[in-house]
Amino acid sequence: MSKIDSTLAAIGPLDQAAMEAAQARQDSLTKPRGALGRLEAISIQVAGITGRALPCLRHKAVIVMAGDHGVVAEGVSAYPSEVTPQMVHNFVQGGAAINVLARHVGARVVVVDVGVAAELPPLQGLVLRKVAPGTANLRRGPAMTRAQALQAVEVGIEVLEAELQRGLDIVATGDMGIGNTTPSAAIVAAVTGLPVAQVTGRGTGICDQALQHKIAVIEDALRVNRPDPRDGLDVLARVGGLEIGGIAGVILGAAAHRIPVVVDGFISTAGAMIAALLAPQATAYMISGHRSAEAGHRAALEHLGLTPLIDLDLRLGEGTGSVLGIGLVEAACKLLGEMATFEEAGVEASSVKRQASGRRAARDRGGCQ
Amino acid sequence: MSKIDSTLAAIGPLDQAAMEAAQARQDSLTKPRGALGRLEAISIQVAGITGRALPCLRHKAVIVMAGDHGVVAEGVSAYPSEVTPQMVHNFVQGGAAINVLARHVGARVVVVDVGVAAELPPLQGLVLRKVAPGTANLRRGPAMTRAQALQAVEVGIEVLEAELQRGLDIVATGDMGIGNTTPSAAIVAAVTGLPVAQVTGRGTGICDQALQHKIAVIEDALRVNRPDPRDGLDVLARVGGLEIGGIAGVILGAAAHRIPVVVDGFISTAGAMIAALLAPQATAYMISGHRSAEAGHRAALEHLGLTPLIDLDLRLGEGTGSVLGIGLVEAACKLLGEMATFEEAGVEASSVKRQASGRRAARDRGGCQ
Repeated sequence: MSKIDSTLAAIGPLDQAAMEAAQARQDSLTKPRGALGRLEAISIQVAGITGRALPCLRHKAVIVMAGDHGVVAEGVSAYPSEVTPQMVHNFVQGGAAINVLARHVGARVVVVDVGVAAELPPLQGLVLRKVAPGTANLRRGPAMTRAQALQAVEVGIEVLEAELQRGLDIVATGDMGIGNTTPSAAIVAAVTGLPVAQVTGRGTGICDQALQHKIAVIEDALRVNRPDPRDGLDVLARVGGLEIGGIAGVILGAAAHRIPVVVDGFISTAGAMIAALLAPQATAYMISGHRSAEAGHRAALEHLGLTPLIDLDLRLGEGTGSVLGIGLVEAACKLLGEMATFEEAGVEASSVKRQASGRRAARDRGGCQ
Repeated sequence: MSKIDSTLAAIGPLDQAAMEAAQARQDSLTKPRGALGRLEAISIQVAGITGRALPCLRHKAVIVMAGDHGVVAEGVSAYPSEVTPQMVHNFVQGGAAINVLARHVGARVVVVDVGVAAELPPLQGLVLRKVAPGTANLRRGPAMTRAQALQAVEVGIEVLEAELQRGLDIVATGDMGIGNTTPSAAIVAAVTGLPVAQVTGRGTGICDQALQHKIAVIEDALRVNRPDPRDGLDVLARVGGLEIGGIAGVILGAAAHRIPVVVDGFISTAGAMIAALLAPQATAYMISGHRSAEAGHRAALEHLGLTPLIDLDLRLGEGTGSVLGIGLVEAACKLLGEMATFEEAGVEASSVKRQASGRRAARDRGGCQ
């Protein structure tokens, strides 16, 4: 079986028994039931993903997929493609926003050249898996071949599996690629059927006139390429990007190996839409890190049924929102694992039914210490 | 001068020069301008609060004010007052949600008995500053005397100042007090003039019928006490709580000593409203940690002009939302201090004006290592 077929076949439903045990323990902790809101729900989701009633997130990584875009020739971005390899160097040197935030939450940064339009030297922390030196201009034809799209997704799966070998309990997705809000908007428009103007934003910060031009470019791309919205690889090949394919692969690999995956903003969510077309069950393994300020992100999240953890008007990508999300997911799991139960704390709780499974779970904790 | 008078007199405007230097540095960092959204604004606010262009948040604390409420006799809460001292013990033992989250963000937990209706023994981590063993039933008359209200606020100021001696770069507020959503809703209704029904919620989780009763109790309290909405101490004394006064004091003390203060949910924001009545300039020192699921919190935040950092349906109090906020504020300040500038990273940025002050700031960083 090919890498993608075995990966898709391995993606199953969440572990209901682990989720029930986590729910029972939540209900035994020293707080009113449900008072930790979405942090409770997240801890239960992570229990279902990992199959562990008390999930422990010790090893954390953000995988930043980098690629370039032929459509930059159309003037859709405020920055030139040369910035992509320059930012890859910045990531490797530890000076970018994603490095700062990853250090803050204790995650390692893995940078992958899956399609940068420049030769990159071997560097510590950089994984060289270039499928092509950037995509073709999607306004004129397909961004890549179907074989390249498949290869980009498989790179993502393989990078995720390599990180598993180093220890991985939670992963965040990230992207770098000048021009990549253009293919992302094209994917969201193709998959949701929404008008291009509604899902296209200013990216790194283009003016009104450039935004109108960008919308026209994406409309042309969809007319020229006619992507099939039921076929994830077709959408990716015709109007996507290599780093977006890589992100889809990371998500699919995470789902297959039962690792919670925190999805970053607009570009990563476009990758998540490709992943969900290939394996609808993969959405259960996704946690949305944040809602981006980019116009189409809300629609993309709604399409996937994801509710973001934070909403701070970030529009940088790189994994900045997803890595902040890791911090909150970790907090949610620590609450589940480390809080005292009513019984342990000797707190009055006549209105709370204590559950035997909660007590058992309490005795088991400490596995994370 | 009395403690409160000297504190109020010390609260001045934010440091504009530090804010301008922080803004200039933000604009020189390797990202499109403004791409870090509210994290940029928060870092600039903290620069203005501390007077440091590159603020460093090394020492962190959450101060949890605990007090009881005579109005619990009216059946406004799902839990009995005995839970307040039991939860104080849980805090001191490290088993509550606030302990787990404080450990997660590296903050110490300081628990203050400012009005618990039980004798508490001297315990490590517990500050004994009881003003009274709980408030009187505010449905029947004032919750406390004006002298007690003042004393509660001064306890908050003094606890903040004691923590300053231990090292304090950012502080979060927290509360524990069975029944305290009732005085909080009364404060919000009194100060905003909104109908009681619009700002009263289910607290720890009461049923529809109990909610209607709680609304009637608060309406009675406002009718009986007629608090003066321009006089913070009058509102606090007539329909407030001792821990709410303590929280107001922590906020005023933080503002006077130029320490950023992250305000927790509904109860803490009621305390912030008292603080803002006493010193309108104090609001510039406040950061809202989260929006609570409690009904009146939105109105209270809007009244103060605060936008919460997270919105995860928490409704626990203790400082759980504000401590999560500390993590985000720290991330914002690390981004400002640790990211490379375009110049340092050798990234193309012809569209970005690099600022001499940004370069100077970059050379100065490392003060936080």
